[in-house]
Amino acid sequence: MGGMSDLSVAPVAAHEPPYYAVVFTSVRTPGDHGYDETSERMEERVREVPGFLGMDSARTPGGLGVTVGYFRDPAAIERWRADLEHRAAQERGRDHWYEEYTVHVAKVERSYRFRRAGRQ
Amino acid sequence: MGGMSDLSVAPVAAHEPPYYAVVFTSVRTPGDHGYDETSERMEERVREVPGFLGMDSARTPGGLGVTVGYFRDPAAIERWRADLEHRAAQERGRDHWYEEYTVHVAKVERSYRFRRAGRQ
Repeated sequence: MGGMSDLSVAPVAAHEPPYYAVVFTSVRTPGDHGYDETSERMEERVREVPGFLGMDSARTPGGLGVTVGYFRDPAAIERWRADLEHRAAQERGRDHWYEEYTVHVAKVERSYRFRRAGRQ
Repeated sequence: MGGMSDLSVAPVAAHEPPYYAVVFTSVRTPGDHGYDETSERMEERVREVPGFLGMDSARTPGGLGVTVGYFRDPAAIERWRADLEHRAAQERGRDHWYEEYTVHVAKVERSYRFRRAGRQ
């Protein structure tokens, strides 16, 4: 992007609390091992989960990845947790893709948003 | 890092709930404008806040940044929120560094960790 901001990139907006944030922080193993394809598939699939509100994801090259999924309530998280294709992907993650990860499941009590004047 | 995993990079470990996660998702403006120096200074400073548990941060080049700070309780978040140097940095952030950001303040109800066998 050569120092330019990509205007198509935007954080998930603040929803009306309460809702849930699932924070997933990880360090990858070297190489792909089918990660990219599965990652895209999981992104498509989670968007179909009733109560899924959106996802923010970033990875510093060679460093930490932080992904936050937002859900309306614990039932929505449970629907995603119980998804069989998701469970298979999690198992491949532990077998191949991740050196380590941490998951924090948290109930959002308040949230707010800043947008620069004139930003779309 | 040329496809190598940096073993010094590690996510903040799961603490005993309840604790708080403050999720900060952002899109930067182009250029530095003193951001890097202030960012390092804020990292040093937040680590001195009683009840601060750690921080995970990642930014996709040209894309989204996701930072999660962990705090023992709302009083610890309030101490950091009230820090005058932090407040001045937030104002510079709105004036210069961020196109937009969202903040979610959330109470962690459960958390867990995976580490590959043999990982330090």
